[in-house]
Amino acid sequence: MSELRNDRLLRALAREPVDATPIWIMRQAGRYLPEYGATRERAGSFLELCRTPELACEVTLQPVERFDLDAAIVFSDILTVPDAMGLGLYFVEGEGPRFERTVRTEADVEALREPEPERDLAYVLETIRLARAGLAGRVPLIGFSGSPWTLAAYMVEGGGSQHFARVKAMAYDRPRVLEALLERLVAAVTAYLNAQVRAGAQALMLFDTWGGILDPRLFRTLSLEPIRRVVAGLVREHEGRRVPVIVFVKGAGQWLEALAETGCDALGLDWTVDLAAARRRVGDRVALQGNLDPCALYAAPERIREEAARLLEAYGHGSGHVFNLGHGIHPDTEPGHVAALVEAVHALSRRYHG
Amino acid sequence: MSELRNDRLLRALAREPVDATPIWIMRQAGRYLPEYGATRERAGSFLELCRTPELACEVTLQPVERFDLDAAIVFSDILTVPDAMGLGLYFVEGEGPRFERTVRTEADVEALREPEPERDLAYVLETIRLARAGLAGRVPLIGFSGSPWTLAAYMVEGGGSQHFARVKAMAYDRPRVLEALLERLVAAVTAYLNAQVRAGAQALMLFDTWGGILDPRLFRTLSLEPIRRVVAGLVREHEGRRVPVIVFVKGAGQWLEALAETGCDALGLDWTVDLAAARRRVGDRVALQGNLDPCALYAAPERIREEAARLLEAYGHGSGHVFNLGHGIHPDTEPGHVAALVEAVHALSRRYHG
Repeated sequence: MSELRNDRLLRALAREPVDATPIWIMRQAGRYLPEYGATRERAGSFLELCRTPELACEVTLQPVERFDLDAAIVFSDILTVPDAMGLGLYFVEGEGPRFERTVRTEADVEALREPEPERDLAYVLETIRLARAGLAGRVPLIGFSGSPWTLAAYMVEGGGSQHFARVKAMAYDRPRVLEALLERLVAAVTAYLNAQVRAGAQALMLFDTWGGILDPRLFRTLSLEPIRRVVAGLVREHEGRRVPVIVFVKGAGQWLEALAETGCDALGLDWTVDLAAARRRVGDRVALQGNLDPCALYAAPERIREEAARLLEAYGHGSGHVFNLGHGIHPDTEPGHVAALVEAVHALSRRYHG
Repeated sequence: MSELRNDRLLRALAREPVDATPIWIMRQAGRYLPEYGATRERAGSFLELCRTPELACEVTLQPVERFDLDAAIVFSDILTVPDAMGLGLYFVEGEGPRFERTVRTEADVEALREPEPERDLAYVLETIRLARAGLAGRVPLIGFSGSPWTLAAYMVEGGGSQHFARVKAMAYDRPRVLEALLERLVAAVTAYLNAQVRAGAQALMLFDTWGGILDPRLFRTLSLEPIRRVVAGLVREHEGRRVPVIVFVKGAGQWLEALAETGCDALGLDWTVDLAAARRRVGDRVALQGNLDPCALYAAPERIREEAARLLEAYGHGSGHVFNLGHGIHPDTEPGHVAALVEAVHALSRRYHG
């Protein structure tokens, strides 16, 4: 493997000194980039794009070619694991993900396949291998998965949902079925992420999109505890370097202290969290990633620069901050505004380092 | 006016002793009740139902007739104020509220009508007068309004929105226009709520459905500060009794301390907030209302009883808790499950009082 020439991301996640605050953007390989649209057109569909390693690698690299970003993230979908467990993932244009089969009973849980990443998710691992080769050490490559709870929510509902009424009813009424499902998902997600590390992922991120919709008791049992178990099962060193783990739970600003105890290296913060207060709350236990509102990128470049300055000042001096949005970039964002943000973060952050 | 025979709600909001914890349900007059459906059918549409005081009064009283609730809330919509300001509210079946005109420029703000509640919102005030007569002192009647920020968000977008991108872009790029709009709304909402008190509302509630989608700086300037200004302008005593004000900001679990300083009597909590921790955080500054997940009502009655017991125990001994859901009741809720909840709260709460 080529030597890593820009290791700001890994150093910031380890809270080791950096020359400038690293930045990458959630969903940076995506629809706001015209070149992404062109590759997707060639693939035929979003799912074919995910499943064709040459094309998935191409879109993984696109944002790194265009912007001075400090990381790439493998292009994939968070629902690849349930798909590999036999649910039949498909996408309805403009309506998001759906599953052909749902999980509603104990029998449904038992019928789930135990995915073997090298066989059932080989296309993701091959994308990682190709992207590592394509990056040639320019920046590190991040691998990721949906969290057990977020995957379970989609698997029970059969897709996205306004209130996640079915999976919540199950949580209140038949907690054993849901716990059995989460048990299966902890194992599958752990194996999947470890396979990504073996294929070349240099950092990992767990996305818990729906942890923030739960009441405090259910949050602890259904979102937090499975995350803790996944993190405990991960390979933490590879190629002679630590593989840091970032945990991102949307809407979990109230639970930062608990999330900092899951064993992860960093917390992803959505934009509703006060970054200065978050740093005080987690102390030196974890690094922090975030947390500009994706809607701030609709503003004029000079305003984007002001918002970047505000967040850098909120985090303050020293390492441990990875700049990012507080959620995925919106598809109607101007690419030029992303360039302005990346430039501003690198330029304005130097005074907080060294 | 008839003497109030059940004043548990008003006593709990004032943190005065009660015999049992009072309960009412956000959106208790609504689609989950078959009798509501029958009245709405007679009205022809949701908006006609809101605008016909006899029918709006009828649905206001329905949940109180059916369940042993401790309060009624006037049946209306949160968007009546922007409608009275000239935006032309209408509803598209299954898609929620829309406005014929939006507010995007300074000229749009200047063109807004200053609503005169007794003229432009007379139908709400008449509903309140009829409902007070119909209640005849059984339980107190709550009046309400959307908060300035929540109304502004709908007015700029022209209806509901996934990300509220337009109003957020305005917040970052053209804050002066948004501040001018909020200024108008603070005046209009204050006048509207005071008119409701004069018409007979015995408690008031401000609904800030979208305060929780803002970053911390914008939350303070766009959501919190206008709420504080509305509360400061409200009539707080009427008919010889204090008129308490409940402020509910969805997704604001991180901001309870700040919200408790707005001058309100109580905070509404959504279901993601830990009720015991919330009580510790706000101390004796305000009462708390909430906060069962509306989805918990999908569970079996014995499970609903357990969840009620859990929340009552979380709040603990003494007055200052008004039981409610953490958000409006879902339209597909079984009315029998509501009955089970109301019964459980009254029965199980007695040990925490007296």
